[in-house]
Amino acid sequence: MTPLRVGLAGLGTVGATVAQLLLENAALFERRAGRRLDLTRVASRTPKPDVNLGPATFDTDLGSLDADDVDVVVELIGGVTSAKEVVATAIGAGRHVVTANKALLAAHGEELFEAASRRGVSVGFEASVAGGIPIINALRTGLAANRIDALAGIVNGTSNYILTAMEEEAQDFATALAEAQRLGYAEADPTFDVEGIDAAQKLAILAALAFDATIEFDGVHVEGISGIDIEDIRYARELGFSIKHLGIARLHEDGVEARVHPALVPDSVLIAKVSGVMNAVMTHGDAVGPTLYVGPGAGGPPTASAVVADLVELARGTLPVPRPAERRLPDLGIEGVICAHYLKIPAIDQPGVFADVADVLSRHDVSIEAVIQRPQAIRSGAEPWVPIIIVTDEAPEAVARECVSELGRLSGVTGEIARIRVADLTAMMPPAPPAGA
Amino acid sequence: MTPLRVGLAGLGTVGATVAQLLLENAALFERRAGRRLDLTRVASRTPKPDVNLGPATFDTDLGSLDADDVDVVVELIGGVTSAKEVVATAIGAGRHVVTANKALLAAHGEELFEAASRRGVSVGFEASVAGGIPIINALRTGLAANRIDALAGIVNGTSNYILTAMEEEAQDFATALAEAQRLGYAEADPTFDVEGIDAAQKLAILAALAFDATIEFDGVHVEGISGIDIEDIRYARELGFSIKHLGIARLHEDGVEARVHPALVPDSVLIAKVSGVMNAVMTHGDAVGPTLYVGPGAGGPPTASAVVADLVELARGTLPVPRPAERRLPDLGIEGVICAHYLKIPAIDQPGVFADVADVLSRHDVSIEAVIQRPQAIRSGAEPWVPIIIVTDEAPEAVARECVSELGRLSGVTGEIARIRVADLTAMMPPAPPAGA
Repeated sequence: MTPLRVGLAGLGTVGATVAQLLLENAALFERRAGRRLDLTRVASRTPKPDVNLGPATFDTDLGSLDADDVDVVVELIGGVTSAKEVVATAIGAGRHVVTANKALLAAHGEELFEAASRRGVSVGFEASVAGGIPIINALRTGLAANRIDALAGIVNGTSNYILTAMEEEAQDFATALAEAQRLGYAEADPTFDVEGIDAAQKLAILAALAFDATIEFDGVHVEGISGIDIEDIRYARELGFSIKHLGIARLHEDGVEARVHPALVPDSVLIAKVSGVMNAVMTHGDAVGPTLYVGPGAGGPPTASAVVADLVELARGTLPVPRPAERRLPDLGIEGVICAHYLKIPAIDQPGVFADVADVLSRHDVSIEAVIQRPQAIRSGAEPWVPIIIVTDEAPEAVARECVSELGRLSGVTGEIARIRVADLTAMMPPAPPAGA
Repeated sequence: MTPLRVGLAGLGTVGATVAQLLLENAALFERRAGRRLDLTRVASRTPKPDVNLGPATFDTDLGSLDADDVDVVVELIGGVTSAKEVVATAIGAGRHVVTANKALLAAHGEELFEAASRRGVSVGFEASVAGGIPIINALRTGLAANRIDALAGIVNGTSNYILTAMEEEAQDFATALAEAQRLGYAEADPTFDVEGIDAAQKLAILAALAFDATIEFDGVHVEGISGIDIEDIRYARELGFSIKHLGIARLHEDGVEARVHPALVPDSVLIAKVSGVMNAVMTHGDAVGPTLYVGPGAGGPPTASAVVADLVELARGTLPVPRPAERRLPDLGIEGVICAHYLKIPAIDQPGVFADVADVLSRHDVSIEAVIQRPQAIRSGAEPWVPIIIVTDEAPEAVARECVSELGRLSGVTGEIARIRVADLTAMMPPAPPAGA
């Protein structure tokens, strides 16, 4: 069979590893794909680094990949504008595309998929979400018998590294972020990761695939982790929770709920124990029930592993041509969410304050599930206030927000109230079925 | 496109669920597969139960599936003899096969795969291992860029249920087993599950696929969990371990190490927290590093989910025809294993006994990593002995065995010594790569 001729755009960490894998494991991939994967061209705007590209032609012009000896363009340059041009050009010329670019897909996925569908070319994007975890493949194939109605995940390694360091090393947010930057786990400008934008893009891609629907990235509710205090992590720990930065998507009859925010996850849910830069995605299907996928979320080799998996599938002829989504689902926003809430209420250390707090919650029909209130002496320093920590029972978003607003107006409450949602993942992990079969 | 015509052999829990899914979700599967999945024939030796089979023909003769209106035979009758006949007949007649039968594959997989390879028909067996977890698909496709060099898993839900009940409910083995039987998680004769045979069959299937090799099921070292005492679980807990029934396979330069036995798993390894009848499989690939897959290991709907996933792939034309394994790998047995060991040594409560124990280990160059020895008064009852609990540093299997033998001959040792291996899974879960990409 003729080789699959690969044109590679971008020669950063992932691109260099893809080139290296294609050269070093050529025989393995030929055996697995049934034909050779030949790297014919490499294009990168920066001059060629010291990477062995074998017989491939190198050019600093990205347009050089628009050539007869390229069957598939692997887009690893990142960003949106140039990447879109490279991908659109490839599709327009009838070439297949493999990309790791979640920002591109979140912004222009629908348009690019439509173009690919019209041209009959395949688009692989396993590497765009959760790095080395083959979650796209699982959703597309392994779980094909299921209607997926919910998914949740830790899909940003930077945020998870920071939250883990805060929990395990007792570092505050700024220290953990600086350490993450020093280790190369966070960018100089970490906004994209710690404010949840990256996670929201990945969640939109996963949800679109899982629910077979067009999902507007703009409709994803996004909150980052920069407001999480180490004290919140300690209190959560004491109550049997870890704080994780989660993406959660649920299919409802009238639309899709998609949100990224910090959340308390009970220790009984496995995902609470996924630490450091690891990623995890949990799904719920009507037949299979819950399944969980864990692995490295980024880095050169894991991401390259996902890129090459798409190339092997393409060479086998099994990487699908995108098809129009079955439906466009209305975005339900955060308003419909009903969950438990963690509240940290800074209060004057005087009798009656807790009663006032309890009264506000009670008037809104919000039950209290757990409370921590320490005598002032135990707290370090000598602040004139004590935090009242409350985990409520489930309450609608609007009610929780109104409670926080009213609590903030109590005379005994002395500062800003922290509210963190509790992830209701146990609903996705119902009692497992019998092991008899 | 013409429908894929499905003949179903066996109408137990899984078979009935497959039939139900094919009928109820027909439109969904047609959309996903690009053609209809039509259930045309059902055969089961027992008379037809009260299950809606739509327009499918029912027959108590398994031979009725050898018919022109069947493109693929789904074998869900279990056992080996009849199942082999059904599968071999189907392959011989040029029909594809989907099976959930690990015993059949462990016993005759090589022969059946060769026959399928010659006839050019596909064989799907996602349902044969770890129920609803799409691990076969992950190994075959999602991880195709990797050389997999190790895998480990909890692949028998019955054993995991029992060990979990022993740990969390403080039940002894017999009580936990009885409870598992009452709940339908264990068979009346539980040997197959609790003695590790089922797990060994699944491990052989996974290792063969992961290492692209022929693996002899007979070469898998097998130990069950019936000898695990609740005291061992408590001491392990105290030392930061859970006891799990693991299958472990590793690729070495000179062959394959494959073993099923109870093992202490440190709490830091996620798989230690997989409880109840859930299954989990961890793999290590050269590019991706470690990935973990968790989900329900058995039961009608999860297993049917895997069966139908194979059917959808077959309908798409992407379910592979088996090919001869790349190599036949020598089985290395248990002798080459080097790991830490948990020892429970029943000893007379007298001075000098611990020194004698330490001396035996020291003479074999085995270091002690952790010790628990309680004054007798703390122990319940008034036995004339105390257990000395030791976790050793890594030692080869033969050395550990010799130590146990010598320890047993010490005058201060009063009974049988329990030895449980410590699973060295951290080697499969090295520090995760940066999250910068």
